[in-house]
Amino acid sequence: MNVTSLLDLTGIFVFALSGAVMGVRKRLDVVGMAVLASMTALGGGILRDLILNVRPAAFESLGYVLVPLLATVIVFFWHPQVERSMPAVLVFDAAGLGLFCAVGTEKALTFGLSPLHAVLLGVTTAVGGGILRDVLAGQIPSLLYDRQLYAVPALLGSAVMASLWRLGHAGWQATLAAAVLAFTLRMFAMRYSWRAPLARGVPDD
Amino acid sequence: MNVTSLLDLTGIFVFALSGAVMGVRKRLDVVGMAVLASMTALGGGILRDLILNVRPAAFESLGYVLVPLLATVIVFFWHPQVERSMPAVLVFDAAGLGLFCAVGTEKALTFGLSPLHAVLLGVTTAVGGGILRDVLAGQIPSLLYDRQLYAVPALLGSAVMASLWRLGHAGWQATLAAAVLAFTLRMFAMRYSWRAPLARGVPDD
Amino acid sequence: MNVTSLLDLTGIFVFALSGAVMGVRKRLDVVGMAVLASMTALGGGILRDLILNVRPAAFESLGYVLVPLLATVIVFFWHPQVERSMPAVLVFDAAGLGLFCAVGTEKALTFGLSPLHAVLLGVTTAVGGGILRDVLAGQIPSLLYDRQLYAVPALLGSAVMASLWRLGHAGWQATLAAAVLAFTLRMFAMRYSWRAPLARGVPDD
Repeated sequence: MNVTSLLDLTGIFVFALSGAVMGVRKRLDVVGMAVLASMTALGGGILRDLILNVRPAAFESLGYVLVPLLATVIVFFWHPQVERSMPAVLVFDAAGLGLFCAVGTEKALTFGLSPLHAVLLGVTTAVGGGILRDVLAGQIPSLLYDRQLYAVPALLGSAVMASLWRLGHAGWQATLAAAVLAFTLRMFAMRYSWRAPLARGVPDD
Repeated sequence: MNVTSLLDLTGIFVFALSGAVMGVRKRLDVVGMAVLASMTALGGGILRDLILNVRPAAFESLGYVLVPLLATVIVFFWHPQVERSMPAVLVFDAAGLGLFCAVGTEKALTFGLSPLHAVLLGVTTAVGGGILRDVLAGQIPSLLYDRQLYAVPALLGSAVMASLWRLGHAGWQATLAAAVLAFTLRMFAMRYSWRAPLARGVPDD
Repeated sequence: MNVTSLLDLTGIFVFALSGAVMGVRKRLDVVGMAVLASMTALGGGILRDLILNVRPAAFESLGYVLVPLLATVIVFFWHPQVERSMPAVLVFDAAGLGLFCAVGTEKALTFGLSPLHAVLLGVTTAVGGGILRDVLAGQIPSLLYDRQLYAVPALLGSAVMASLWRLGHAGWQATLAAAVLAFTLRMFAMRYSWRAPLARGVPDD
């Protein structure tokens, strides 16, 4: 297993944790927790691969199936501890966001999408799982109203990935650079509470 | 750019307006508005292309990405004006409905679906984006309970498109005829408040 | 028409009934009832085929389109009678669950998925339609919180199907055995109120 795979599975693991924790909060049973964990972790990549018209990676890799189940088991038994370490989970979630947008953009470019569309698909990869998690849990996706910058760091990371690719800098160094940029922006956005604007004239609460 | 492309982008624009306006009403931030605008405008076509097993047109065309963003910007700055002109937007929405059902049916026929299935996919193209918009905005799709005739005009337009195709009348004239028929029926349905029935015995409000 | 097709259409019919009945309960109009009936009956198979990267069977078969519409008509006119016979519908629903998980797993194996992934896709086939039904009807999928064993019987049926396949026992006998096992488990789970656990420490109501 190489470094990229390890980072990838780490991203899947923390996304799955966030899904399973949402499951506990909504008082779902263990089946619901497992479904929510898996969809959060794998949903973005599945959407990406459906759009690229290839078989989803989640249905060809062993780790992609087992890691969300592992996260479910951990949250099932130790959810108070996981909840208490949510600040740490948010750091990993930011890492997952960075990695998923970079990897998703790269895969889209490999399959011949234009840079613009590759960026769009990279962002979809990064945020798609969280959107599915929230829809299944019966709430408006937090991405849409939360005002925390979440999609914007992914957008910038994807754009940098696509730019490096266009300049001939493919390879894991480019992927890592784009992922680190998105991660850093996301951490700053959380630290300094950068907020997305509401439409002009809509009163701020 | 030919007439069909122009009509197509017009349809995408008004569908995107309706998504962005819904975003303002739900107090979503600008990211949520852009997501809702894009999904409303592109969701039906993406579903159609996934089912046809081809790469979605939205990921190969520049305009399909930029037009929903343009609609988002307009609604972001001038949503009171857009809301005030909603009657006009509804006319354009009816035009988009007509065009999308005709174009979707035609594409499905081109890819070898039977007329019946092509009609089904044409209707999916026309109404799929609105369903995704409502699900993401956290409400039951208005198509399902609204009782306004919305799917039915699309169904008839798609059926006419498929019939003309079977009779050997392909080409933009057939597409336009089917689109105009669906548009006209939708306008009549709005004008005269034609309503879909509830199940027998369910009391009318 | 062979026995498998007949069982398949029966499964589609009862799943469609459950969708249409949900439509009446939510006071949807006839269009909403038809959409809900079709998505409940066909959604799982459509998801399966999208992931397998083949054209969904629902868009190539006549019966798959007509049977949900037939169920809609029946519920439209006679929903009090259908509601009264819901215990019988639940038996058929269990039969549909069993059949869909077995057939879905088999199709996934035929397309070269590993046994683990084929099981996952078999369960998706069996429960996907119900999840879509609930999301469209504006509620958290009952699968996620209901605590009734529904996914677990499908999981075991799929696992048996994949095991028999690995042992060289393909063919309708294997499919039927797996389907009967899942059906039986589901019936026992209903009869004896077997329940999925909540996360440790979450108080039971």
